Amino acid sequence: MTSTAERDDSALRIADFSVTREMTTRWSDNDMYGHLNNAVYYELFDAAINSWIIEQTGFDATSSDVLGVVAESGCRYFQQVTYPNDVLVALRIARLGHSSVAYDLGLFEITSHVDSASLPIAARGRWVHVYVDRRSRQPTAVPTQIRALLEEYAP
Amino acid sequence: MTSTAERDDSALRIADFSVTREMTTRWSDNDMYGHLNNAVYYELFDAAINSWIIEQTGFDATSSDVLGVVAESGCRYFQQVTYPNDVLVALRIARLGHSSVAYDLGLFEITSHVDSASLPIAARGRWVHVYVDRRSRQPTAVPTQIRALLEEYAP
Amino acid sequence: MTSTAERDDSALRIADFSVTREMTTRWSDNDMYGHLNNAVYYELFDAAINSWIIEQTGFDATSSDVLGVVAESGCRYFQQVTYPNDVLVALRIARLGHSSVAYDLGLFEITSHVDSASLPIAARGRWVHVYVDRRSRQPTAVPTQIRALLEEYAP
Amino acid sequence: MTSTAERDDSALRIADFSVTREMTTRWSDNDMYGHLNNAVYYELFDAAINSWIIEQTGFDATSSDVLGVVAESGCRYFQQVTYPNDVLVALRIARLGHSSVAYDLGLFEITSHVDSASLPIAARGRWVHVYVDRRSRQPTAVPTQIRALLEEYAP
Repeated sequence: MTSTAERDDSALRIADFSVTREMTTRWSDNDMYGHLNNAVYYELFDAAINSWIIEQTGFDATSSDVLGVVAESGCRYFQQVTYPNDVLVALRIARLGHSSVAYDLGLFEITSHVDSASLPIAARGRWVHVYVDRRSRQPTAVPTQIRALLEEYAP
Repeated sequence: MTSTAERDDSALRIADFSVTREMTTRWSDNDMYGHLNNAVYYELFDAAINSWIIEQTGFDATSSDVLGVVAESGCRYFQQVTYPNDVLVALRIARLGHSSVAYDLGLFEITSHVDSASLPIAARGRWVHVYVDRRSRQPTAVPTQIRALLEEYAP
Repeated sequence: MTSTAERDDSALRIADFSVTREMTTRWSDNDMYGHLNNAVYYELFDAAINSWIIEQTGFDATSSDVLGVVAESGCRYFQQVTYPNDVLVALRIARLGHSSVAYDLGLFEITSHVDSASLPIAARGRWVHVYVDRRSRQPTAVPTQIRALLEEYAP
Repeated sequence: MTSTAERDDSALRIADFSVTREMTTRWSDNDMYGHLNNAVYYELFDAAINSWIIEQTGFDATSSDVLGVVAESGCRYFQQVTYPNDVLVALRIARLGHSSVAYDLGLFEITSHVDSASLPIAARGRWVHVYVDRRSRQPTAVPTQIRALLEEYAP
């Protein structure tokens, strides 16, 4: 996690990602230190990835034979984010495999005096979904409709 | 909780409230039964009330001498709400006292095929904030700026 | 909510309830005011009621034909509770009907210098579960095994 | 993240860590797939690290001049964990610096038929706390009492 490329993460802007989702924050997201608790970033990443997939493919998580479960996640925090500000979660596909997909994510705090293109990145996330059979929980191919969407954005 | 008036709660619509706030939901909000967990409704009520107060009065929860703490809350659930749908939280002032304020709340699930005025109410909330001194935690008067806002909407 | 009986709620002690469950709190439970966020009490009530039912009856929420969904909840907050202290959630059956059950709940903060019998009640909760068919979501009878458990404790 | 050493992560057992904390889970922790949501693991890591520090050093997060904020976190998920089971969070110090500390974490699901020494690891976490001045939020030395604790366990 210390390569030159990664040390420049804080220079990333929204234009470096493929898709953005705007989200609201909650009073309960702020912890004792008056800023979003670190676990909330993962809730927001999860909300963004899945709402995008559901909206674009009609995926139904309650009845599908195949589930995307999280195999790995990570986040580096550059700047604190504070309720009641809204956030933008931006994502791009880092790698698409047979049964898994890795996302590269950015979280941006929306503040009234900065236009969105110039917003500094507050946190950078990594996320790996592995698709598994609902019953056996064994890895299986990414469902066709989801693969079609991901291929549009894969590197 | 069983008066005639209250049995008609499910007839309430957005126009019956004074203020509305739109909010996003999260994958993690849905519980094992595939709908928003009951505690999430309270997170959304809290987020709506406080973001409205902060936006309208500039209240700073990290430095103010006086805090609004929850003395009582309650919710009746009429219809399930499901991520990834957005919600509208609507509020009106039920009672404004010297050191406390009671809110009457409605939660509405935004669905693409219904215009907002006709949305059925999914849940109805009650919420009492008591204002206390930050150090002593003893009740004190509602802060002047917040009182001015609440009086505009008080019954 | 202002009858004489209810004004004496803060005199309730653990011995006034039938069942107690000990639970841990989390850093993320404390909000900006340095105490458990109000919505967390509902998460703890939910955790206590359901872990008791699951442990005593073997109820399997992922496969059962009938679900217990929350129709109504409420809480009055008497004293703040603070992570990292553990809590005791205490419950008793307030009313058992054909398809629903109402619980009366107390939440107690465990502090090293007070024995549990003397702990002051920090919050009092109400909770109504209605049992519904998983598919139709229409009310149905409380499942036999759960009813047998609840009847042992019903008033 | 793919070295030989790391591929063997799933062989880690509680004895490979220095400190363990037992924690309860909640109904609301289980998501639509009937297992703990991925973000909950971070809540549990956070709860374990901080309750250990607070218990051992008397650190007061509400008044201290110096705060430990999360600079980086990560998790790999090997096995699902399901409410209502309790969990053990185990930690060891990976690296102790002037103003930061890195933790290596394991999460274990407590099941009745396996003794704790043999529990398979369900997830492995990484966690970096950087200590900052409360006002300026600039990095500063790890507070003396916390450093004394961490040095006992540092590699």
